[in-house]
Amino acid sequence: MTRLLIIGGSDAAISAGLRAREVDRGVTPLLVVADAYPNYSICGIPYHISGDVPDWRSLAHRTRADLEEAGLRLMLDTRATSIDPAARTVTVTAADGQPRQLDYDNLIIGTGAEPVRPPVAGLDTLGPADGVHVLHTIGDTHDLTRTLDTEPGSALIVGAGYIGLEMAEALTARGLHVTVVEQQQQVLPTVDADLSGLVADELGRHGVEVHTGVTVTALDRIGEHGIVVTGRRTDDHAPFTATVGLVLVVVGVRPDTVLAQTAGVGLGVRNAIAVDRRMRTTIPGIWAAGDCAHTYHRVLDTDDYLPLGSTAHKQGRVAGENALGADRAFAGSVGTQVVKVFDLVAARTGLRDAEACDAGFHPISHHTAADDHKAYYPGAKPIAITVTGDARTGRLLGAQLIGHRDTAVAKRVDVYATALHQGMSVDQISDLDLSYTPPLGSPYDAVQIAAHQWTLRRDAPRD
Amino acid sequence: MTRLLIIGGSDAAISAGLRAREVDRGVTPLLVVADAYPNYSICGIPYHISGDVPDWRSLAHRTRADLEEAGLRLMLDTRATSIDPAARTVTVTAADGQPRQLDYDNLIIGTGAEPVRPPVAGLDTLGPADGVHVLHTIGDTHDLTRTLDTEPGSALIVGAGYIGLEMAEALTARGLHVTVVEQQQQVLPTVDADLSGLVADELGRHGVEVHTGVTVTALDRIGEHGIVVTGRRTDDHAPFTATVGLVLVVVGVRPDTVLAQTAGVGLGVRNAIAVDRRMRTTIPGIWAAGDCAHTYHRVLDTDDYLPLGSTAHKQGRVAGENALGADRAFAGSVGTQVVKVFDLVAARTGLRDAEACDAGFHPISHHTAADDHKAYYPGAKPIAITVTGDARTGRLLGAQLIGHRDTAVAKRVDVYATALHQGMSVDQISDLDLSYTPPLGSPYDAVQIAAHQWTLRRDAPRD
Repeated sequence: MTRLLIIGGSDAAISAGLRAREVDRGVTPLLVVADAYPNYSICGIPYHISGDVPDWRSLAHRTRADLEEAGLRLMLDTRATSIDPAARTVTVTAADGQPRQLDYDNLIIGTGAEPVRPPVAGLDTLGPADGVHVLHTIGDTHDLTRTLDTEPGSALIVGAGYIGLEMAEALTARGLHVTVVEQQQQVLPTVDADLSGLVADELGRHGVEVHTGVTVTALDRIGEHGIVVTGRRTDDHAPFTATVGLVLVVVGVRPDTVLAQTAGVGLGVRNAIAVDRRMRTTIPGIWAAGDCAHTYHRVLDTDDYLPLGSTAHKQGRVAGENALGADRAFAGSVGTQVVKVFDLVAARTGLRDAEACDAGFHPISHHTAADDHKAYYPGAKPIAITVTGDARTGRLLGAQLIGHRDTAVAKRVDVYATALHQGMSVDQISDLDLSYTPPLGSPYDAVQIAAHQWTLRRDAPRD
Repeated sequence: MTRLLIIGGSDAAISAGLRAREVDRGVTPLLVVADAYPNYSICGIPYHISGDVPDWRSLAHRTRADLEEAGLRLMLDTRATSIDPAARTVTVTAADGQPRQLDYDNLIIGTGAEPVRPPVAGLDTLGPADGVHVLHTIGDTHDLTRTLDTEPGSALIVGAGYIGLEMAEALTARGLHVTVVEQQQQVLPTVDADLSGLVADELGRHGVEVHTGVTVTALDRIGEHGIVVTGRRTDDHAPFTATVGLVLVVVGVRPDTVLAQTAGVGLGVRNAIAVDRRMRTTIPGIWAAGDCAHTYHRVLDTDDYLPLGSTAHKQGRVAGENALGADRAFAGSVGTQVVKVFDLVAARTGLRDAEACDAGFHPISHHTAADDHKAYYPGAKPIAITVTGDARTGRLLGAQLIGHRDTAVAKRVDVYATALHQGMSVDQISDLDLSYTPPLGSPYDAVQIAAHQWTLRRDAPRD
């Protein structure tokens, strides 16, 4: 019987274990989980903080009992400290401090990512007890909850990416006055500036104070319940300062590869673990998946670093299947992402214009606004859509959509994502037989109207 | 300059004219429209009747002025009575009764469909003045509105297809007690019986009385404001009778091909006009598009009859482009349909199990229920999904989805429709990089969960 050892307890690791059981009921994957929270939805943390999910335990995709019932064995609160690839052993240390050696035939590394700590003076010395937080684990969540229980009154969030914006909404819902500070010139730097402006407007409508183009340089504790945040504006170096009760630093993640590196596993893009499309690392018998590994990007046809739960699940399944001898290839990501910010939803898939240029394409990007359903039926709302396609081949390269949460933006982006996965042309999107009824769409859906407008733009005579 | 003549004023005809103008600004398409209502949304009629769209004029996709501004010429209230393909002329009769001859270089027939009148005693002699209606045109809409203004109190709808169910909702919204009678054994016969049951439940929850397996045989006028509806049950021939203030007969449509036939244009599936994928009829210089023509079905790889607005638009565009000398092929329909029934949305695309069998596939169909978003986030609701795939090739053949109107069923079916268009396997759907955020989806979206369950079912050992 194959001894399948998995290091990690989040999306990739759990998916790998569950898939292994689907493929072979005789295997009992053993998971080494660093904390006490296996299979928690990290993406759900903002919704616990906001109060939408009152009990943090609800954030578990599955309970420990579910996982054991499904045939997984779990060692919780246990850190894997080293891998010996030659001996095929992993040394672990449980809560009791005693090291132990585990044998494996095949090993899957799913150690995930850790929050990036930007070079901000004071960040190394201040911590949760001071009201200064990062947010990546259930442990971090408990820390943040404790600070919120002290009624800090105001919060400053460093970073206006996906988590930063979700947390701006969550902390606003908790009654805090929220300030968001972003180093780049716009919130949600993963979408174009014009679409980002819609998100900034939505934040403003809900009382969130937004400062873009500002680099935070220092945090200082002041009195019992205050933190002075100091920074400077990128363009004119003007000083920025704010005093708040809580600081949340969410400027992205980097792959957690310490364990893999000590074992000699090779690294790839952005120092994530290098894997091929079978999720094999550079060492035989060792697979990796999820936020600790790089990701094959189907549109770029090369590896990229895209730490997302949806990708981690898929990579984990491939690793779990192949670790038992299968030969499944990870189909690849196309860079699909979505975020809800108050009543707005922003989604993207594929490449933006500049990214496409960098990758050697010849992009044209065209912006369109189209209603989510027939204007005569009550409640129609515009969706802002930017389509990027290759001028020479006509191939779809990417799409960005922003609309009210009632406009099914998250599912409409999926049509583009499916088209990208299949390498379709922009023009072919107009040909798709999409569903139509007046309360929910148009004879040409908004995604098709935007595609058609792109085609007209491409074919238009140049002045 | 090409003289482009188009007969018709609805989706296919207007799309053909507009596309012709996009391709060549020098062309001025002339449209012969039988009534005074060009470019009206027939699909929107139920929402005017319900009161959601107070002014029927709002149902126009574009006004006459819009169309003329776009470069179309319109002859309204004008009937085309004959085509002479050899002389390339069409004889028309305007409201003044004077026949006139129009020359063309290329002709597009977009005469649409007309309501099927089932063999019901009394249906030929009773009409709108008696409270007996069909519903296909704006004229029919005005007739129905006049009857509703007499406060008929109750209505019986013959036919529980898409329009029948939309009208059940609309007339309920108008305060009528509504009875729906369907000859087949279930409402919405275009989806499987188990899914249809969910729709029947929803109708019941809103007070609609449903009788399936009942054939209406006679209508009789009784007193000032009453119609006696007589029928029999299919299984035991038990009598059915009801007395109502209004009867609406909506049992489907058939292609309006009288004009085409007199010109010698060949007919195809279900006696619709035979066209190839260029929308060419059997006569040179004559194209056809929309509900009067048959439709290339991409999954069946043969022609079918699918009279839908979304298809009519696409066929019209192809006809308009090719009539000016282009060589575009209609990509084909995959049979996507969606209907909102009160708070429920039912959608399908592709083939159902029996249809797939008939077409020579080896289908397996599997039913799954999956939440529209993570259960921990408030408001999660189940979507019932049936996936049909080919057991031998693994190819996706079709999908049916039913869920609450908040569950984006209409856009989720579009992912399957896109996959069908591309000939993807069921398994490949699990590989798609679809968007995920907890309030709007799952790491594996419901459409992927259903696809994966299909794959497990196919691979399961047989007893």
